[in-house]
Amino acid sequence: MYSFKNDYSEGAHPRILNALIESNFEQEEGYGEDRYTRKAIESIKNRIGRSDIDVHLLSGGTQTNMIAISAFLRPHEAAIAVSTGHILGHETGAIEATGHKILSVESSDGKITPFHLQAVLDSHPDEHMVKPKLVYISNSTEIGTIYKKNDLVQLREFCERHHLILFMDGARLGSALCSTENDLELSDLPALVDAFYIGGTKNGALLGEALVICRDSLKEDFRYHMKQKGALLAKGRLLGIQFLELFQDNLFFELATHSNRMAEMLKVEIHGANISFLTDSPTNQIFPILPNSVIAELEKKYGFHIWEKVDQDYSAIRLVTSWATKEEQVAAFIEDFKKIVDKRI
Amino acid sequence: MYSFKNDYSEGAHPRILNALIESNFEQEEGYGEDRYTRKAIESIKNRIGRSDIDVHLLSGGTQTNMIAISAFLRPHEAAIAVSTGHILGHETGAIEATGHKILSVESSDGKITPFHLQAVLDSHPDEHMVKPKLVYISNSTEIGTIYKKNDLVQLREFCERHHLILFMDGARLGSALCSTENDLELSDLPALVDAFYIGGTKNGALLGEALVICRDSLKEDFRYHMKQKGALLAKGRLLGIQFLELFQDNLFFELATHSNRMAEMLKVEIHGANISFLTDSPTNQIFPILPNSVIAELEKKYGFHIWEKVDQDYSAIRLVTSWATKEEQVAAFIEDFKKIVDKRI
Amino acid sequence: MYSFKNDYSEGAHPRILNALIESNFEQEEGYGEDRYTRKAIESIKNRIGRSDIDVHLLSGGTQTNMIAISAFLRPHEAAIAVSTGHILGHETGAIEATGHKILSVESSDGKITPFHLQAVLDSHPDEHMVKPKLVYISNSTEIGTIYKKNDLVQLREFCERHHLILFMDGARLGSALCSTENDLELSDLPALVDAFYIGGTKNGALLGEALVICRDSLKEDFRYHMKQKGALLAKGRLLGIQFLELFQDNLFFELATHSNRMAEMLKVEIHGANISFLTDSPTNQIFPILPNSVIAELEKKYGFHIWEKVDQDYSAIRLVTSWATKEEQVAAFIEDFKKIVDKRI
Amino acid sequence: MYSFKNDYSEGAHPRILNALIESNFEQEEGYGEDRYTRKAIESIKNRIGRSDIDVHLLSGGTQTNMIAISAFLRPHEAAIAVSTGHILGHETGAIEATGHKILSVESSDGKITPFHLQAVLDSHPDEHMVKPKLVYISNSTEIGTIYKKNDLVQLREFCERHHLILFMDGARLGSALCSTENDLELSDLPALVDAFYIGGTKNGALLGEALVICRDSLKEDFRYHMKQKGALLAKGRLLGIQFLELFQDNLFFELATHSNRMAEMLKVEIHGANISFLTDSPTNQIFPILPNSVIAELEKKYGFHIWEKVDQDYSAIRLVTSWATKEEQVAAFIEDFKKIVDKRI
Repeated sequence: MYSFKNDYSEGAHPRILNALIESNFEQEEGYGEDRYTRKAIESIKNRIGRSDIDVHLLSGGTQTNMIAISAFLRPHEAAIAVSTGHILGHETGAIEATGHKILSVESSDGKITPFHLQAVLDSHPDEHMVKPKLVYISNSTEIGTIYKKNDLVQLREFCERHHLILFMDGARLGSALCSTENDLELSDLPALVDAFYIGGTKNGALLGEALVICRDSLKEDFRYHMKQKGALLAKGRLLGIQFLELFQDNLFFELATHSNRMAEMLKVEIHGANISFLTDSPTNQIFPILPNSVIAELEKKYGFHIWEKVDQDYSAIRLVTSWATKEEQVAAFIEDFKKIVDKRI
Repeated sequence: MYSFKNDYSEGAHPRILNALIESNFEQEEGYGEDRYTRKAIESIKNRIGRSDIDVHLLSGGTQTNMIAISAFLRPHEAAIAVSTGHILGHETGAIEATGHKILSVESSDGKITPFHLQAVLDSHPDEHMVKPKLVYISNSTEIGTIYKKNDLVQLREFCERHHLILFMDGARLGSALCSTENDLELSDLPALVDAFYIGGTKNGALLGEALVICRDSLKEDFRYHMKQKGALLAKGRLLGIQFLELFQDNLFFELATHSNRMAEMLKVEIHGANISFLTDSPTNQIFPILPNSVIAELEKKYGFHIWEKVDQDYSAIRLVTSWATKEEQVAAFIEDFKKIVDKRI
Repeated sequence: MYSFKNDYSEGAHPRILNALIESNFEQEEGYGEDRYTRKAIESIKNRIGRSDIDVHLLSGGTQTNMIAISAFLRPHEAAIAVSTGHILGHETGAIEATGHKILSVESSDGKITPFHLQAVLDSHPDEHMVKPKLVYISNSTEIGTIYKKNDLVQLREFCERHHLILFMDGARLGSALCSTENDLELSDLPALVDAFYIGGTKNGALLGEALVICRDSLKEDFRYHMKQKGALLAKGRLLGIQFLELFQDNLFFELATHSNRMAEMLKVEIHGANISFLTDSPTNQIFPILPNSVIAELEKKYGFHIWEKVDQDYSAIRLVTSWATKEEQVAAFIEDFKKIVDKRI
Repeated sequence: MYSFKNDYSEGAHPRILNALIESNFEQEEGYGEDRYTRKAIESIKNRIGRSDIDVHLLSGGTQTNMIAISAFLRPHEAAIAVSTGHILGHETGAIEATGHKILSVESSDGKITPFHLQAVLDSHPDEHMVKPKLVYISNSTEIGTIYKKNDLVQLREFCERHHLILFMDGARLGSALCSTENDLELSDLPALVDAFYIGGTKNGALLGEALVICRDSLKEDFRYHMKQKGALLAKGRLLGIQFLELFQDNLFFELATHSNRMAEMLKVEIHGANISFLTDSPTNQIFPILPNSVIAELEKKYGFHIWEKVDQDYSAIRLVTSWATKEEQVAAFIEDFKKIVDKRI
């Protein structure tokens, strides 16, 4: 049984494990003040091309969202997210547990636009309601779509005008930036968003997200928030060593490119079988809409999530590829898929 | 410069890194539902000799304290801790950030007794004050002392009579249980405390604490709390693999025994030089009281914390050993120490 | 300018002010332990016909919702409310500020049914999402509708089966219970809901809500929660004296009946002018849909809220009556209204 | 049985009740936007002599402390209070429930000095501890002492230098300012503290504290915090009418002066009987140290709190006077007191 369930089924890229072994007996400072973490942060800053940003290494997406958002907001301020946003339905109320409401907007492609934001502002005029303050977006989104440069320019302009914080969840930022449809550079982001993170967990690391804070007023005392929420690892080196390995050369981008290429292979062949997709995803998550009978056959050999029921007979499934997805497994899936579909017709 | 600053200066025990490599390309479920985590939990249950306990793997001590205590308490209930307790002064208000006051008691040996608890109960009679509910103890304590079986029996009896929850921070539980003065077994704990954890981070793992919930009423829905506070790692296997390695045989105890032996070597020799200690520690942290001039000399070759000023001329330093402390380094330190002390006289 | 904006535009019923004056120089215990509060609670229990309930007097609706809901829930548990529910959009995230998400359901008549609840349970299967636990309903609802006995019986049955807490916001409970369409008695409620409150602020008091906790497991230590959230008034007598006055005879019900009668007068006449209503409200809030030009004319002499735009030319307004609404003012409004409508045709 | 237990045993000053009656049927806006609240705020600003301050009316001391402190602090920041401070031991962890630790300092006269603050700063150097940020003082203090102008000048200077917020709990500010030993004017406060409140509950009102925010950066959006924590009363007029009555002329100060005079009468006579006091209080709370046998006799006719045991035979009691304390009752107490003391000798 081969799994396309998610992009965190395997361990870490071998170079990362190697780096852990090589550094293992060096004595380092704790809590992220070790030399590896410092070098990793330098590498990330260099890659982004900015020295006036703060970088912090955290363990996972929920942790990063929770700490960043609660650090950035005052008690009466709220976040805005698309209804499919990870913080809204997949993080057990982590944001609310820090005291903040999330205002939900509907968007068929998983992306937020100034149009959505204006509607939220219009319906929250006074102190009887929360004050909308932070815009949470994901790139790539939960349904595999990506923000183009112009999308962000428009959001940015709106957020500045209305004193909103623009925060990008980048748990799958690698896949977004390495998409064939992408027109953004990592170095574009500091001018476009106030903070974002670079997901390591879903792109080759054992665990780790690198949070980048671009806006000066959000930087102060951030390590206090990390410590308070349990995110300062005693052996912070574990995160530093991994991100250094990912960013000292092109490894991070190579892994994401591979992951996307595997998804593209699947997409092309499935599309070729006259199958439509729930969303137009150019990243490592694709959502083909299949007859339930085909799904039942596929499930005998492959692991994946059934994403949503489309009608009586059809459902969308989610296939996820990763840095670790083997090309021969993709080929095998395609072969099996074709057989099942052919038989059906 | 060799460091005795803490027990998390190095990486992980080589067997753990090996286990990570061997399992690296196996596909596993995420969020702690993988086979390694399940096996690790089984191993821990077996070692404790109880099947009616719940075990959860988390990343670090602050995270574990915060999640357990906030899950166990209702909003108006408070924790009680000794004034040197880690949750009181070294976790950036993590417990208070979840809404709970910590009531502090003074104790010269870092341990809480029924006497302390009675005083807290007496001074908190009604709803104008918080309701004391959870007793937080550490074993070993922040100053290296340990709870003997009888200490816990008495605390247990008091807590039961007064409906208090007894929670043991075991970030250094290995060192406590492997101390030559210890009379507790891991298997004694479920009958004595309501919940405790087994620290991996400071005993050979890259990161990881195994929380054991013994009291039934505290078990329900615990994974919700972990997820909400950012503690469910996508690649939960990382924790499972490590604890399986530590507990499938005696590795966990062997590492703690080594660590204690290194501290004992230091203690014997320092004591032999007519040096007194701040606390009577039989574990891997010792606190010799040294002339400031000796400390200044030692600092040229060794890393350690100056714990507290004792008088104008003397200070207590903290020396910490670990699973990774090399016997030859301890010998070298002793030699240097003796030279410095001799020269001084 | 006469206002139909809300039911808290005036002060208190004269009997209440009188009672404050008469008792003014008696010395009483503070924080709700005075004789008036005790008698008020007895009167309420007698009226409900149950001695096994707990009654607490609080200052306002938001305060009561916030304290009750946060006291009843554990950190990972969520409330469910209809999208128009007061806690969702009109309390500045008070519930979220205590750490709890509110899950929203859509309902055209402002009421929740087991159908809505089942859908919420179905979409919240595991620990990656909050655990739905408390059902928040209002009677009367934000749009003036009421729960019939059978509605509550069905909700009750569902909640029991699924271990959900059923909590009724009764800020306008008087108006609901005194509606001509109502078939509930105050004494029915303990068997139907786990907790509810009886609104005084909107029915003749200066301020005050009487929270009734019916389910035993929710009663413990409730005064701690009140104190912690700033709701124990030093001069708790202020609440006790008012509720005693409202419940030692029929004053509470007489005031609500008057309020409903005033709304009914308005409704009959507006309906007679061939005007339709946004909701079918038998209580003290009605929502006629009027041409914008009529609204503009009415606004010259009367205060009211424009509730929502219905189309280009029509909007629904909200007219609210209260214990203090004068019959002659209602008559004057009707006369003016007819003139404006006639002129228009 | 006449009570000297506290200063909130009676209702309100008759002029306040009168004002409630006179305004009762006027229709007013809700939630503190009524004309009375606006006028009350103007009166307070005039009395302070500053137009650049914000004034908000809230219901009680715990509520005001909780809302102000949680609004002023970021999540990792802590308050500092003297160990006898009301927020530390008498508010059921209200501050901690909003997420903030309170750091305690010891002070025999109930007052904080720069010396205490420096020690707190010194022991909180980094992100492993909370960041001390707000200094909470009470005037008068919990033990009846007052801050002199020079005390505040020194605190102010220290706080400015170290970027600390200075917040004054003024639940008994009237008594402090009307003390014969006081050298502060209400109009001095904006230059000395960042925020303070003027207690109405303990000085003639049914309920009410007027919070004054002096520092610009603390003013923004404060009404959001009030609403979120349940402090915006629907009939906000109730607070406005009372504070207008207290501040449109000298009523507030006359009531406090009377209260102090009653305490002074008690103090002089008790002192004349060679009795010493626990604290040197020039305000409406005094703490004579009496033989337990005397206390037992007094308790037969008078209500008061036993504050603390001094030794085997002696205890300090607390006698509190108020605006409503009758001179003849004070005289009666003195007479009884003398008889008991005489008999004993």
